[in-house]
Amino acid sequence: MKQVSITRRARFNAAHKLWNEEWDEAKNFEVFGKCAHPNWHGHNYEVHVTVRGIIDEATGYFINFTDLKAIINEYVEEPLDHRNLNMDVPWLKGKQTSVENLVIGIWEQIEPIIATHGCTLERIRLYETENNYADYSGES
Amino acid sequence: MKQVSITRRARFNAAHKLWNEEWDEAKNFEVFGKCAHPNWHGHNYEVHVTVRGIIDEATGYFINFTDLKAIINEYVEEPLDHRNLNMDVPWLKGKQTSVENLVIGIWEQIEPIIATHGCTLERIRLYETENNYADYSGES
Amino acid sequence: MKQVSITRRARFNAAHKLWNEEWDEAKNFEVFGKCAHPNWHGHNYEVHVTVRGIIDEATGYFINFTDLKAIINEYVEEPLDHRNLNMDVPWLKGKQTSVENLVIGIWEQIEPIIATHGCTLERIRLYETENNYADYSGES
Amino acid sequence: MKQVSITRRARFNAAHKLWNEEWDEAKNFEVFGKCAHPNWHGHNYEVHVTVRGIIDEATGYFINFTDLKAIINEYVEEPLDHRNLNMDVPWLKGKQTSVENLVIGIWEQIEPIIATHGCTLERIRLYETENNYADYSGES
Amino acid sequence: MKQVSITRRARFNAAHKLWNEEWDEAKNFEVFGKCAHPNWHGHNYEVHVTVRGIIDEATGYFINFTDLKAIINEYVEEPLDHRNLNMDVPWLKGKQTSVENLVIGIWEQIEPIIATHGCTLERIRLYETENNYADYSGES
Amino acid sequence: MKQVSITRRARFNAAHKLWNEEWDEAKNFEVFGKCAHPNWHGHNYEVHVTVRGIIDEATGYFINFTDLKAIINEYVEEPLDHRNLNMDVPWLKGKQTSVENLVIGIWEQIEPIIATHGCTLERIRLYETENNYADYSGES
Repeated sequence: MKQVSITRRARFNAAHKLWNEEWDEAKNFEVFGKCAHPNWHGHNYEVHVTVRGIIDEATGYFINFTDLKAIINEYVEEPLDHRNLNMDVPWLKGKQTSVENLVIGIWEQIEPIIATHGCTLERIRLYETENNYADYSGES
Repeated sequence: MKQVSITRRARFNAAHKLWNEEWDEAKNFEVFGKCAHPNWHGHNYEVHVTVRGIIDEATGYFINFTDLKAIINEYVEEPLDHRNLNMDVPWLKGKQTSVENLVIGIWEQIEPIIATHGCTLERIRLYETENNYADYSGES
Repeated sequence: MKQVSITRRARFNAAHKLWNEEWDEAKNFEVFGKCAHPNWHGHNYEVHVTVRGIIDEATGYFINFTDLKAIINEYVEEPLDHRNLNMDVPWLKGKQTSVENLVIGIWEQIEPIIATHGCTLERIRLYETENNYADYSGES
Repeated sequence: MKQVSITRRARFNAAHKLWNEEWDEAKNFEVFGKCAHPNWHGHNYEVHVTVRGIIDEATGYFINFTDLKAIINEYVEEPLDHRNLNMDVPWLKGKQTSVENLVIGIWEQIEPIIATHGCTLERIRLYETENNYADYSGES
Repeated sequence: MKQVSITRRARFNAAHKLWNEEWDEAKNFEVFGKCAHPNWHGHNYEVHVTVRGIIDEATGYFINFTDLKAIINEYVEEPLDHRNLNMDVPWLKGKQTSVENLVIGIWEQIEPIIATHGCTLERIRLYETENNYADYSGES
Repeated sequence: MKQVSITRRARFNAAHKLWNEEWDEAKNFEVFGKCAHPNWHGHNYEVHVTVRGIIDEATGYFINFTDLKAIINEYVEEPLDHRNLNMDVPWLKGKQTSVENLVIGIWEQIEPIIATHGCTLERIRLYETENNYADYSGES
């Protein structure tokens, strides 16, 4: 009954900006710098979805990579790829579209789905650039 | 009098969309697909600037990497990083913000500057994603 | 009438071995070493397809990346991914499945198709490992 | 008595397929898709071996990277590189050659050896492609 | 009150050697091999600094990536980049400049600073080459 | 008689500094900046050696990758890895150890050897960091 984790990588390209509606422009630029540019900027995001389970002897796995890929496609790539994170994503409404909020949001979208496949979501890692990334493991 | 090339890599994060104002919405989506999403999307662009010259014996180079970095910063990163390529870049006005037009535009910005440093711009390579990139060498 | 090149990256996972039927086993191992292992080995191949053309002002490109991706899928990924290069690929029959022969074979499959899209195949690059790759530009 | 981990990366190129002998062909293709291709396919596998220990002041480490490299060479690269995972590896006989089973198998080969060097095997990570990888830390 | 981690990557280029002053030359070469070369060698080090905290709703983060970048610049890049790790770094004096000692030293420099920003240093990862890296999480 | 190119990647870790003995310290720091740090710094260099030839039908290649690897090992890795480029390399004596001079020097070491194998050295590419690299193709 050994526990293994597998990770699937996926990518999406999106526009966003950091902007707090309760602050004036000066405060927004002071806090967020160039990330507050009003006409948006964007990123090639890279997400790593890690799930944990017990291997089924007949198949050699606990979830097919093809199924995991389909879940990520439906719940991450379809709603986020070639979108504006501030304008187009219902579950980010009223929140900053920081990589930190985004990684939690992706966890919350995917976690209940993974749970129905007899395994456990272990971690979401989200790269915003080659130098910046965030991890969330469901801890509070 | 041996000729060597050196390349400096830089990066910028920008929003854009592909949209032809002379076409209606249906035609734009037919041609550009999800790249025509009206609320923008974005990329982590990666640019490789290659220059060619004859080594100066005293320094071991023909242009200091620090100077090349400063040129790329002034003419590529400053005008493009954390910007909207369709709205914020004068030299892209009236053109599609495709990676093909962008790589030519960067060449045209940088080429006259490089020429004043006693060396020759050889190639601009521009990555839009890990799977798509464009090269321009000034050929017509 | 500026000429730009674009490159699309794709990947396929295949089994192969190097083996010359006209040589005995000893000679095969002497020449090909572990690459002659009779039970096959395999690679994650990575192919970079570079095409050259003149930008159409209306679209900002000369071939849609989506079309180029579809061509590579049909002529490279479909016939080669999750295949045995020695057993399953008609156009490699009777040839060593070296990265050198493979890169020429991919050129010959794709070149006539690219030509029908109003642009020119410029180069195929094929990575066999992170340390070994081959380039072919149609030169003889 | 601070605990540090070090990781050594290694690579091997192997052929394999997913196939359950107790199922007929139709069932195998239904479950494993193209991974069941009878003539094999293959991968450039990349393994990351992480060990944990207490630094020896005289050397600045607890196991020499050179020794760790030699262990990985003997127990991972020698038996797996340029091999067929289904046919040539005794400790995979009767098991699916999935990345999940493979990462556990590598752990079981290496763990007793690492233990004789005064340190602890912490994790094996195994990449099958740039998009798919598995981790095992000995948990049950 | 969800806990998220963010990681910032930075790089520095330094010279070093492994050499124990209490041993003679023969013993040093026997233990450290080519790493004991008396005229030094060097590396492009890559450091990943991971910090953990609770997101502030107003900003979408718990520490600004810009602030984290500045801390890494002051405490890691400034003292280590384009330096000799054996000769120029006070906090490495009397210690082997192994990647293991270096990752602990970086932790000890940065940890008290991170603590004043209302978050927690979770891990330092330090790559010496593409094949060798060390992790430290403050455990003893 | 098709011409193909193959490339082999190799790596070496070395110390160096930029320093012109005919200049005083102030001038050296003015020109070379932190690269003139007297106690040395270092890099993980990555070299790509590209050779061109006509495929032999019997083997599927014109030079065995194993032979090319051995040439690079003897003429590049052995003399440069874990060395001080300013002090330990006869063919760099009296020259700046810039990536530009280094790439030409590697060409001059390897070119006559490649010529004896019935093929042609086409290009040396040398990465000093992930952002800086040089190419030399023997042109003057």
